[in-house]
Amino acid sequence: MTRKQDGEAGGPRRKAEIFTATLDMLGSLGYDSLTVEGVAQRSGVNKTTIYRWWSSKSELLRDALLHSHILRFELADTGSLRGDLTELAVQLQDLLADEHRRTVVEAALVGAVRHQAMRELVISFLDDRFGRHRPLFERAVARGDLPPDADPTPLVDAMAGALWMRVLVRRGEVSDTYTRDLVDMLMDGVTRAAGRRPSPAR
Amino acid sequence: MTRKQDGEAGGPRRKAEIFTATLDMLGSLGYDSLTVEGVAQRSGVNKTTIYRWWSSKSELLRDALLHSHILRFELADTGSLRGDLTELAVQLQDLLADEHRRTVVEAALVGAVRHQAMRELVISFLDDRFGRHRPLFERAVARGDLPPDADPTPLVDAMAGALWMRVLVRRGEVSDTYTRDLVDMLMDGVTRAAGRRPSPAR
Repeated sequence: MTRKQDGEAGGPRRKAEIFTATLDMLGSLGYDSLTVEGVAQRSGVNKTTIYRWWSSKSELLRDALLHSHILRFELADTGSLRGDLTELAVQLQDLLADEHRRTVVEAALVGAVRHQAMRELVISFLDDRFGRHRPLFERAVARGDLPPDADPTPLVDAMAGALWMRVLVRRGEVSDTYTRDLVDMLMDGVTRAAGRRPSPAR
Repeated sequence: MTRKQDGEAGGPRRKAEIFTATLDMLGSLGYDSLTVEGVAQRSGVNKTTIYRWWSSKSELLRDALLHSHILRFELADTGSLRGDLTELAVQLQDLLADEHRRTVVEAALVGAVRHQAMRELVISFLDDRFGRHRPLFERAVARGDLPPDADPTPLVDAMAGALWMRVLVRRGEVSDTYTRDLVDMLMDGVTRAAGRRPSPAR
């Protein structure tokens, strides 16, 4: 095969289809039962084609997690840390409220607990998403919303973790009110946040 | 069998052994493969004995989660909400840092994602633990640390969720510093918490 044909076959649209098939199968079958053969069949390409681009199931899955639209977040720039975090929380909430996308997240997190290979993929996915959101925290520091030495990791862990507990474990409803209350708590602290709404004095 | 014999056989120590065996097997085998037969064998009692006390695997598991020492938390009363939450966070951290106890938590949470029966057990377990910690929040309201209308659920979700993300997903270290930073963030908000340590002025 010439490079040109390779390029055509590996075009962005074809790759996007393969990523979707990969995550669909992760969601429906779980990490254990996901196979390159299955992905090839589902996305209508040759197994050898997939192996030409990705050397293993793990490499394929890494790219699918990083590049699929299913797990994509848009970086907001609302002009305030509170606004940016609210946007992020809403996107996380939308991700978990969508049954199809939720099963992908569930399979990835469940797989991460059980399999070291899947855990490493999830960690590198989280690092990637965290890296993309770094500008949000840099802007907050520049604005004076956040001290320069603030570590945003616990903030993101607490936000994602709270939504995980509520949606995936408790199967509670999420709403704009819940998201706003959560961001207020993280921004202002639990004591001030609860008293904030009646008189947003400060 | 007389009631007396029943009482003897079902003594607290024997039940505690059965609960331990149940959670051990949940941790090592997962919800699917846990069976009453297996628990009977492991704890050295008759299957019929177990069925005399619990009508199903699910009932047995419910009692094991609620009553085993493996998942027990002590309710702290340190005199401040910050102190009480720190105590709670440290206990959660200890739970996740202990490999044996962690596998039980992992199996329960993974099971909760996959099986509705397990999810209901986890939800009723969380409700129970939450109920036991209610006095902590009532004291905080009485002290003025927390407004009377504050809903402590997002607070507990964020604390447990952050530790889950860090320990079970990222496999990050937890330390007293991390726990303290997390509680400070939840108490004071992310902006103040980071600047808090150098000058604990307020």
